[in-house]
Amino acid sequence: MAELPDKAERFIDWYLEAVEVAGLTDKRYPVKGMNVWTPYGFQARRLLDGVLIRGIEATGSQAVEFPTLIPRTEFQKEKQHVKGFDEQVYWVTRGGATELDVPLVLRPTSETAMYPIFAIWIRSHRDLPLNVYQIVNVFRYETKTTRPFLRIREIHFFEEHTCQLTDDAAAARCRSNLDTFHDIAEALALPYVASRRPEWDKFPGAFYSIALDLPVGGARTLQVGTIHHYRENFSRPYEIRYEDLSGALQYVHQTTFGLSERLLGATVAVHGDRRGVVFPSSIAPYQVVIVPIVSQNSGPIALDAARALATRLRARDLRVHVDDSPDRPGAKYYLWESRGVPLRIEIGPREAAAGTVTAVNRLGEKKSLGPGPLEEPIIQALADFDTALSARARATFQQSFSVAHRLEELANSTTVRLVAWCGAEACGHQIEQAIEGAVLGVPEGPLPIDPGPPPGCIACGKTVDSKWALAGRPL
Amino acid sequence: MAELPDKAERFIDWYLEAVEVAGLTDKRYPVKGMNVWTPYGFQARRLLDGVLIRGIEATGSQAVEFPTLIPRTEFQKEKQHVKGFDEQVYWVTRGGATELDVPLVLRPTSETAMYPIFAIWIRSHRDLPLNVYQIVNVFRYETKTTRPFLRIREIHFFEEHTCQLTDDAAAARCRSNLDTFHDIAEALALPYVASRRPEWDKFPGAFYSIALDLPVGGARTLQVGTIHHYRENFSRPYEIRYEDLSGALQYVHQTTFGLSERLLGATVAVHGDRRGVVFPSSIAPYQVVIVPIVSQNSGPIALDAARALATRLRARDLRVHVDDSPDRPGAKYYLWESRGVPLRIEIGPREAAAGTVTAVNRLGEKKSLGPGPLEEPIIQALADFDTALSARARATFQQSFSVAHRLEELANSTTVRLVAWCGAEACGHQIEQAIEGAVLGVPEGPLPIDPGPPPGCIACGKTVDSKWALAGRPL
Repeated sequence: MAELPDKAERFIDWYLEAVEVAGLTDKRYPVKGMNVWTPYGFQARRLLDGVLIRGIEATGSQAVEFPTLIPRTEFQKEKQHVKGFDEQVYWVTRGGATELDVPLVLRPTSETAMYPIFAIWIRSHRDLPLNVYQIVNVFRYETKTTRPFLRIREIHFFEEHTCQLTDDAAAARCRSNLDTFHDIAEALALPYVASRRPEWDKFPGAFYSIALDLPVGGARTLQVGTIHHYRENFSRPYEIRYEDLSGALQYVHQTTFGLSERLLGATVAVHGDRRGVVFPSSIAPYQVVIVPIVSQNSGPIALDAARALATRLRARDLRVHVDDSPDRPGAKYYLWESRGVPLRIEIGPREAAAGTVTAVNRLGEKKSLGPGPLEEPIIQALADFDTALSARARATFQQSFSVAHRLEELANSTTVRLVAWCGAEACGHQIEQAIEGAVLGVPEGPLPIDPGPPPGCIACGKTVDSKWALAGRPL
Repeated sequence: MAELPDKAERFIDWYLEAVEVAGLTDKRYPVKGMNVWTPYGFQARRLLDGVLIRGIEATGSQAVEFPTLIPRTEFQKEKQHVKGFDEQVYWVTRGGATELDVPLVLRPTSETAMYPIFAIWIRSHRDLPLNVYQIVNVFRYETKTTRPFLRIREIHFFEEHTCQLTDDAAAARCRSNLDTFHDIAEALALPYVASRRPEWDKFPGAFYSIALDLPVGGARTLQVGTIHHYRENFSRPYEIRYEDLSGALQYVHQTTFGLSERLLGATVAVHGDRRGVVFPSSIAPYQVVIVPIVSQNSGPIALDAARALATRLRARDLRVHVDDSPDRPGAKYYLWESRGVPLRIEIGPREAAAGTVTAVNRLGEKKSLGPGPLEEPIIQALADFDTALSARARATFQQSFSVAHRLEELANSTTVRLVAWCGAEACGHQIEQAIEGAVLGVPEGPLPIDPGPPPGCIACGKTVDSKWALAGRPL
């Protein structure tokens, strides 16, 4: 029952062990970077999918599913896009013993699968907007070191694709996606910053890309999602056009919104501690684990009370587990803490007789509940836990940023940095070199901390167009 | 608004058009047999998945997900199995520009993906039983003509895999799966027959296979699922062993239970009619469509009433759509009938003023509801529809079987046939030749019709071991 490595000092080691002890995935599958979703990990993923589905469907987006395999001919229609993905796609070249006439790509993302069909679906302005999404697995032939949930070869992926009448409508859809992500991040208690990526780092084929980044200690950042405005960059090669009111054919303006299982990795990375994973109650496979304390002489009173309480809590739609294994209570506490359960309820024989329980949340706060009905106090304890988890994450978030005024300050950064930047690519590359990382871009909306108005560009000193930008070291 | 082809005379033409007019899938994707799940079709699929998930999780089975790609080395460990699938798998041979050292198979089913990991997970008798399932897409390089939901190349698939202590426990798991399927079929109002497949038609690698077949007109049958007992056929090559109470290593006994989107195809095939698809309310994307009848002088009263009613029905967890498009009511009736909506509610201005509505179910039964609260009467009308749909399917099912006493009777069969069979393979092949189809096997449990005790084998005349078996023409 050793503690995990120090999170601040050895982040990646800590992360890998936290995922391991929580039993969220099994990395022993015989293909590197393709992992097994265990029952426990799959539960968390299913709950996370539910958060995404409720969020996007509230905006009227509809679920679809397009095929996994894309013919090479379709895949290669948009030149920037294929250049961006060519090195990292898997190719299906044979069916049975037959060489395929047209090799098939395992989708790395679904623009090139969907857009030939959008071109058929969309005829008139009355067919717009088209807002559809799918949750599927995508595949990337990753050559870097793989990490569960963060960098893998089969990725559980959320992708919304929309077609709009105008450039403005597409920009509005991007803003709507930002609102949706705000709600999703809130449900996960994950503070983040949205930044417009520099030109050299946008999605292959995009007009602009807004990325959603989380600071995860030091200058490290984790990109958990993106929102892209494509303008007509795909609708032209795929000929997605509509007849406008005057009868003229117009190209649609497209957007996409992408999220992935990285959100689960981010939840581990942001909330976890020396004892393991910490789940917000929204996606905790078990929100409550009840541990009956059974002594040799006390008989089944504590176990009976535990089971009865579990039944009452399940009737209130809580996800509850009674740990009635023969292990010692201390071993159970350790197990369920490492697995991130928000609330542990301990019931001893004397408590069972008195109708009370001891509630210990995953942040270590302990209190006695009862006597009397326990459902409401437990639901309240879960809500209090979520509030406290969110406040802790928010406090850490605030401390994860600091201003840098000179390029030399960027070396050995121990936070993500705010730097004034004129927007020029040459200056951007100087910043990236100095921090040994990346310019994340100019934040959309409020800055994570308030550094006042921006001075001249940190690289060239020019004040014209100088804006606060973020620089960090993406994982 | 022409009627569909005659279902009895031109079944396949009818089926293809019924799927088409309902808009459940789009076949125009540029890879044959890989279709697009439209928003409407995806909803039905999601609801169907929900029926399967609730059914299997009620037995304690847990959801997992294994990778899509399987290394050739693992794929080839069980000899019968690889022989059964070798001709119909897709091969991934390249990642980016790199030829893979070990080619990867796109799973046609997941035995060979899961079992190397089961061998790690299972150590002791305390780890058993292991009951896990996944709902994923599988891939088969189908060379025959493809049909939406029935024979395709990317298949939405449900597969439970279990490991048991003993042969008996595995047989008991197969029986539990039969019970689960009973509940699933009931939810879909689909009468079926379960048969133990003949030796020459069992799953590659199985000890025995029980298949779930539906009669779909004439002598045609549709296999919608299978339950397999593997004994130690896979646990030996994959070395899945447990330590028993005495400390000795034993091989686990395995079972699987497979279902697929064919269940959606079966729902179309069994319930559909000249006007299109008919959904049972369990998986109907919309259970109720409300059509306000708006005349030029009546103002918004009918539309307001329709929307208010929709809100009240949604609060009762019904899936409701208000069709407020500018189309004429007749066009709307036609549309939603072809799409299989169980209940249509019409509201005219006079009805809106009186607080009444006209309810027409998909079987053509019409009645006036109200005045007064409409939620309960509508919920009751849906339940009545499901009962009537089930009774109609059951009646058709009973008429789909007849006894044959001589091989010559099997030619031109217009029903699925019950034949007495001694169990010998040579006799089985004679039956198959005579009916130009297949011996489905000996039913598990009661026969679909009661023909009394079996006479001598229809082929060889022997009475020893003669049992009623089913013969038909699988789609």
